[in-house]
Amino acid sequence: MSRYAIIFGGESYEHEISIVSAITIKDVLKSDLVFIFCDDRHTFYLINEKDMKAKYFSSMGYKKSKELSLKKGGFYKKTFLKEKIVEFDIAINLIHGKDGEDGTISSLLDFYDISYIGPRVEGCCISYDKHFTKLYAKSKNVDILPYEILNKSSDRVIDMDYPIIIKPLRLGSSIGLSVVKDEKELDYSLDVAFEFDDDVLIEPYYENIKEYNIAGIKSKNGYIFSMIEEPKKSGILDFDKKYLDFSRSEGASKAVLSEEMKEKIYSSFKRVYGELFNGAIMRCDFFIKDDTIYLNEINPVPGSLANYLFEDFNAIVEEISLNLPKKRKISVGYRYINSINVAKGK
Amino acid sequence: MSRYAIIFGGESYEHEISIVSAITIKDVLKSDLVFIFCDDRHTFYLINEKDMKAKYFSSMGYKKSKELSLKKGGFYKKTFLKEKIVEFDIAINLIHGKDGEDGTISSLLDFYDISYIGPRVEGCCISYDKHFTKLYAKSKNVDILPYEILNKSSDRVIDMDYPIIIKPLRLGSSIGLSVVKDEKELDYSLDVAFEFDDDVLIEPYYENIKEYNIAGIKSKNGYIFSMIEEPKKSGILDFDKKYLDFSRSEGASKAVLSEEMKEKIYSSFKRVYGELFNGAIMRCDFFIKDDTIYLNEINPVPGSLANYLFEDFNAIVEEISLNLPKKRKISVGYRYINSINVAKGK
Repeated sequence: MSRYAIIFGGESYEHEISIVSAITIKDVLKSDLVFIFCDDRHTFYLINEKDMKAKYFSSMGYKKSKELSLKKGGFYKKTFLKEKIVEFDIAINLIHGKDGEDGTISSLLDFYDISYIGPRVEGCCISYDKHFTKLYAKSKNVDILPYEILNKSSDRVIDMDYPIIIKPLRLGSSIGLSVVKDEKELDYSLDVAFEFDDDVLIEPYYENIKEYNIAGIKSKNGYIFSMIEEPKKSGILDFDKKYLDFSRSEGASKAVLSEEMKEKIYSSFKRVYGELFNGAIMRCDFFIKDDTIYLNEINPVPGSLANYLFEDFNAIVEEISLNLPKKRKISVGYRYINSINVAKGK
Repeated sequence: MSRYAIIFGGESYEHEISIVSAITIKDVLKSDLVFIFCDDRHTFYLINEKDMKAKYFSSMGYKKSKELSLKKGGFYKKTFLKEKIVEFDIAINLIHGKDGEDGTISSLLDFYDISYIGPRVEGCCISYDKHFTKLYAKSKNVDILPYEILNKSSDRVIDMDYPIIIKPLRLGSSIGLSVVKDEKELDYSLDVAFEFDDDVLIEPYYENIKEYNIAGIKSKNGYIFSMIEEPKKSGILDFDKKYLDFSRSEGASKAVLSEEMKEKIYSSFKRVYGELFNGAIMRCDFFIKDDTIYLNEINPVPGSLANYLFEDFNAIVEEISLNLPKKRKISVGYRYINSINVAKGK
């Protein structure tokens, strides 16, 4: 089995969630692991397995760990006379939200030729911005709820019946999200959401809409799906509840759905995953209303990689490791410059 | 005036074009400049101004230049005992195509807190993928030509009247592009395009459609536009002709358009630029057919920054330098981890 480097932390509102995710993965992934922490100032540290405890980070203990520099081919630690590479085969991007899901870490790993599990930069951009997610889903014939987008500087006029749900356009994990029952509550909720983003997404809120989560990958032999979960919730999950959710490593509650509806969910997942999310262990959250399936959210770096949804999570990690996207190598030959120099008489 | 670092090269089919762009900028930008070359293996070099000649690169002379490492706050060169930062105020991303326009360089510069002129990662993703460009333009009520997308592995069936134009989905500079007059030519043209990308975009080809180019920025006081150019061309520009185009530093030929049409072009440009391209000196290529304006392409890192379209290019660079997007700083406080530890009794 491969040796994996878990990359976690990041300058993100979900920084702490990522730490919890990494600790969870340490316990469930039966493989040789190294832990690379990215702090909120973008310094990388090599964390010893024994130090993989939440307190080590919250107490700033991590600052005593070995600093790493990111260069071609990997992460390097300084030793007495020279630099030594941190040995692993494949990195796992486990940074949630900013840095991890906005394309930054993907770009860094791609640029420095480090093989990794996680979404590529294009997939990140589409899933990170909820407006782009909507446009993309529509183009793939996946249904979406109606929506409006409001900018911080726009008039606060909503052309939608209450209750509505307001979300910062580019955040996950329910941060800054609220349900607005009537116009009186609108201003406050917008103020909260605009704390986190200059744009917000507004959707109708359906009290009793059913939510279903499914994770999956594309292996060499096609898609492998997790079970479909109907997450238990009382109203909207708030950040604290969702936070505990990120440390989950135990069995989820399987949704009760007809074979037909299950097939519809699989088909929607496939259309969303497409070529765009190759290399990612992705979780999609769907709604079902009147037998129609709506895409709610794409999580290309889900909490603890949604390990609890898979029957054999270790096998999933192995399968995706065998089907990571290959970058098209471009070699530069300078034949144009030479021919142009001739043409220009230089 | 600021001191600028021109970042050019990249692992890109447009690598050489970027070198030509950088040489052109050296001549037109009246400011203190440093030149940072990214070779096709992703090694950065500090290039002396006197070495900024095409031949220095095509002859691999650049390998004798000082290697740089990219870290927090900037590019560093090794000196005898320690590392020294390369001094500049603002970087200019002048890498065309892959690396420069796909979000990679933007991510690197953002991650390491380097201020730069150029598109941010989200803008790159939308403009680099011609399908996403179409979806985005539609969402901004900017007209687009009808299109189809074909994957390498799909059946080669086109539901469009000939002639058509075939483009690799993710490349600029006319590379891999061809006009297909009838079905007989289809296979060959697809083979060519699939050399460069796994997906191609197919659009109707209108022989006498009018093309107009316009560049612009958003300054602190609003948009500043270049003149609108009607590029001279005989049929489709091929790579060689376009290549010469990238070294342009002279006046372009102003389009003859009614005030009304000009205003329509300005308005389309604004809707495309929006918030997404803040920080970029961007060129948009539009078509006009039957008095309707269609977006053809977004170039967030145009050849030689479209300097030849602006009356006072130096003023444009200064203006955009004063209006670069600020990143929202996120500081991590670890209050959740601490409260969760309490909740879990740890």
